[in-house]
Amino acid sequence: MKLERILPIIGWLPAYRRADAGRDLVAAVLVTVMLIPQSLAYALLAGLPPQVGLYASILPLVLYALFGSSSNLSVGPMAIVALMTAAVLAPLFEAGSEAYITGAIILALLSGLMLILMGCMRLGFLANFLSHPVISGFMTASALVIIASQVKHLLGIPASGYNLLDLLVSMGPGLGNIHALSLVTGGGVLVFLLLARRLLPGVIGKLAPIAAVAITILLARWLDLEQQGLAVVGFIPSGLPALSLPSLSMGASDFHLWKPMLVGALLISVVGFVESVSIAQTLAARRRQRIDPNQELIGLGAANLGAGVSSGMPVTGGLSRSVVNFDAGARTPASSFYAAVGITAATLTLTPLIADLPKATLAATIIVAVAGLIDLPALRRTWRYSKPDFGAMLATITLTLVHSVEAGILAGMGLSIGLFLYRTSQPHSAVIGRVPGTEHFRNVERHKVELCPRVTFLRIDESLYFANARFLEDRVMELVAGQPEMTDLVLVCPAVNLVDASAMESLETINERLTDAGVRLHLSDVKGPVMDQLKATPLLEKLSGRVFLSAFDAWRALNTSI
Amino acid sequence: MKLERILPIIGWLPAYRRADAGRDLVAAVLVTVMLIPQSLAYALLAGLPPQVGLYASILPLVLYALFGSSSNLSVGPMAIVALMTAAVLAPLFEAGSEAYITGAIILALLSGLMLILMGCMRLGFLANFLSHPVISGFMTASALVIIASQVKHLLGIPASGYNLLDLLVSMGPGLGNIHALSLVTGGGVLVFLLLARRLLPGVIGKLAPIAAVAITILLARWLDLEQQGLAVVGFIPSGLPALSLPSLSMGASDFHLWKPMLVGALLISVVGFVESVSIAQTLAARRRQRIDPNQELIGLGAANLGAGVSSGMPVTGGLSRSVVNFDAGARTPASSFYAAVGITAATLTLTPLIADLPKATLAATIIVAVAGLIDLPALRRTWRYSKPDFGAMLATITLTLVHSVEAGILAGMGLSIGLFLYRTSQPHSAVIGRVPGTEHFRNVERHKVELCPRVTFLRIDESLYFANARFLEDRVMELVAGQPEMTDLVLVCPAVNLVDASAMESLETINERLTDAGVRLHLSDVKGPVMDQLKATPLLEKLSGRVFLSAFDAWRALNTSI
Repeated sequence: MKLERILPIIGWLPAYRRADAGRDLVAAVLVTVMLIPQSLAYALLAGLPPQVGLYASILPLVLYALFGSSSNLSVGPMAIVALMTAAVLAPLFEAGSEAYITGAIILALLSGLMLILMGCMRLGFLANFLSHPVISGFMTASALVIIASQVKHLLGIPASGYNLLDLLVSMGPGLGNIHALSLVTGGGVLVFLLLARRLLPGVIGKLAPIAAVAITILLARWLDLEQQGLAVVGFIPSGLPALSLPSLSMGASDFHLWKPMLVGALLISVVGFVESVSIAQTLAARRRQRIDPNQELIGLGAANLGAGVSSGMPVTGGLSRSVVNFDAGARTPASSFYAAVGITAATLTLTPLIADLPKATLAATIIVAVAGLIDLPALRRTWRYSKPDFGAMLATITLTLVHSVEAGILAGMGLSIGLFLYRTSQPHSAVIGRVPGTEHFRNVERHKVELCPRVTFLRIDESLYFANARFLEDRVMELVAGQPEMTDLVLVCPAVNLVDASAMESLETINERLTDAGVRLHLSDVKGPVMDQLKATPLLEKLSGRVFLSAFDAWRALNTSI
Repeated sequence: MKLERILPIIGWLPAYRRADAGRDLVAAVLVTVMLIPQSLAYALLAGLPPQVGLYASILPLVLYALFGSSSNLSVGPMAIVALMTAAVLAPLFEAGSEAYITGAIILALLSGLMLILMGCMRLGFLANFLSHPVISGFMTASALVIIASQVKHLLGIPASGYNLLDLLVSMGPGLGNIHALSLVTGGGVLVFLLLARRLLPGVIGKLAPIAAVAITILLARWLDLEQQGLAVVGFIPSGLPALSLPSLSMGASDFHLWKPMLVGALLISVVGFVESVSIAQTLAARRRQRIDPNQELIGLGAANLGAGVSSGMPVTGGLSRSVVNFDAGARTPASSFYAAVGITAATLTLTPLIADLPKATLAATIIVAVAGLIDLPALRRTWRYSKPDFGAMLATITLTLVHSVEAGILAGMGLSIGLFLYRTSQPHSAVIGRVPGTEHFRNVERHKVELCPRVTFLRIDESLYFANARFLEDRVMELVAGQPEMTDLVLVCPAVNLVDASAMESLETINERLTDAGVRLHLSDVKGPVMDQLKATPLLEKLSGRVFLSAFDAWRALNTSI
């Protein structure tokens, strides 16, 4: 049972039947056909030779099939992770150099180690600290940056940078020199893909990218378009990568590289994990299955280690491929395994053809793929619902567009947490009264309620902890100062889920101050776990009043005792 | 009214009477007498010439009297802030050099600017993020470090460092060479001060330090103890400091100094502010007055700017002096102003005498003063009440003792916030039932309650936000999976104080999934502010069930409708 959790394959392999294999195989063929152009394209996006994308689509898939917990997740190169990889490596290594490629391999290894470590420490819950608006904003902004980064291939002009601002500025001077053939090729593929998406829903539409790749390769060969200045992928070594670890012998002067590499690997890990888990959970829920986030960490970690030892790039789950895998009826992770076999066959046989693949084709494929990540209505929705959430979202988008993906995601995470702390540090509280004829108590300012003379009921609408303990002291003393005839104060605590040591001291302080002022302090609706904690302290002995089960009990007792 | 908030003196000066002046003067004399030895001692502790402590006790007091909001706070040099000043400056500048003294002045200026800025931005609430256990642990550990740092003066041996570990290790080699005269002087003063504290409670006891200073000066002069190797304070320039700004012309090579200086100034500001505010609030509460934390930021900021322009060191409110000020009956901040006049007189007349003051006397004064900050029972109290709070406290103490004050306070703050986030990210929830014969609902596992067939009541004991939204989804789907006969689920939300955009999406997801599963979703006890928010979303339209005022309303409606 426990071994099965660590190695999920033990659970499903013994029950694997021929019918399962049939459905898995169909799904695997579709995934393979999608994965070939995607892996080439995302390698290009990451600034890496195209074969690196293929390498990252073999061993990682096999390892995920062994260690992953989702039956449907299709791991491999993915657009946003490719962009983040480029953003980390570009400032550190010369573009296209051996060091740059080694850098990508090291990023995959570091990311794999970090994910496995987080999985072993059961830190899967940390992914929850990326709020939905921040993730949504980050995806939208990253997609815009990715699209801008591909425009240069469509126009055949130079451009550089890893944010929208840099890309647009660097593209400016070249705009007078647009290369017509690139534009025709890329524009043609773009229109073809968009039409296919519109007119051919379902499985056939998914074949459009591979068709575009095949057609443009044939056209480029036949018309010898490279001679006319069309940029093509160029020579790719045939065969499979040797399993190896990159050489880590660095001089003391390279020591400064480790910090950005570690930070980059961490952010790639977190973003890749959050993306994968949300895909896997959405798909699992449709079949009433569940995903173990900690096991997902281990599965993704193993996949990235696999990428690292087979000369690949960082990988994670891809949305479109996973949905196809699911819709085609994949039953088990074996479908991933079959897809790895498919990519192996492609790597062994098709690499000579890929040399003539126009870069503009790949750019158009990327643009169509990431356009689906842009969710502008989410901005309006979030604005209407919650201004603080919108603020965090806008900061994420803005920083991603004008500075960098790292800055965007970090700012979003920091702001979300900061805003939550700020909100809980200034808690809501309400004087409440009895809804006539019931045992129910509500806010005097919102409902018609009965009040009890000389007894005030104050409902605290927040857990009590260090950040708001002082606010409670202030609120109580303000109430007491405003009602000289008060003899009893009941703190109604249905929303107090936690009383930490700081708040405990504040309650003692309040009790003392009220006693000095001739007011008895009572508590009501104290929850079980909080009550257990209070019993360990001297507060209950020192309390000038009583602890009631409910506000109504307090009302009955205090109303008659007067 | 508004001007009065910025310049509180406008409020009290017009009503100032002769009787007030009398009490303020008495208090000021006592504060002055305490402040002279303290300011000399804390300058020594900060590694600064003694007159810097005196300078920091003149203009800062005047400015605080103008801008501060507490009638009783006595600002000036303070032990922990002095230790932090030394810890920031020691790695950056040569001990005792001009640059070191300039560094202290710059720290005071930076700290002043930061405090005023925080006050203008109304960031006073930020101080609440230092939890009581962290503050208490930090004070205890700092006091231990301070005491260890003074032992060298008592023993007449060399020692260095700004944490307990370094101090003890560096003291080791000197232990064979203890200087008997230093030990006799320091030990004598120590015993004298401890006896005075024990036997002379009240005002007379507060005079013991100045008496010790006077007596040891006279003995040192009379017996020429400096000739016999007793370390004395040495020559102090007479007269008042000129008002000036330090020269900030630094070469490019000094650029690296700014970061530690800025971080140091920020931590000094925060610690000084938290300490001052809690002293001021405690004293204000005794007279049923209130303190405006944002105005305190401005008052303390002005005081530190004052210290910076008059060659002083960073200042903050001191506990013992403030309590004496309060007990002696100070009525208004004018008492601070009178104390400034007293220190001015002392600086002008007494400096020639201070040259013969033994350092061992000051060390003993410091030890007795900070011993009161050590609160070991707080460790046991916190351990018993809350293990997470204890963890944060222990980390603060350990890091302060073995690494540095900065590390201690930062770790404590970070851990407190992290623990709170962790706790709220894994929220408590309970299936509840009706307490028979009442309208009150409690946890089925803790109370004898009635259940309603086919209707489950789930009480959520936490605000819903991004960090726990996914937990709620899991909890609900788990419940539904375990009870196939369920037709209605009521989410009882008295403890839900906030539903952010991420949790909103989770609620929509839950509603969809339950609809698929043939279960209606209802809400009850939704609070006013949360209801206002929900109304702005499509959830209420899409909701498969209803929103009830209370769990009992839902019980009545759903029980009869079956």
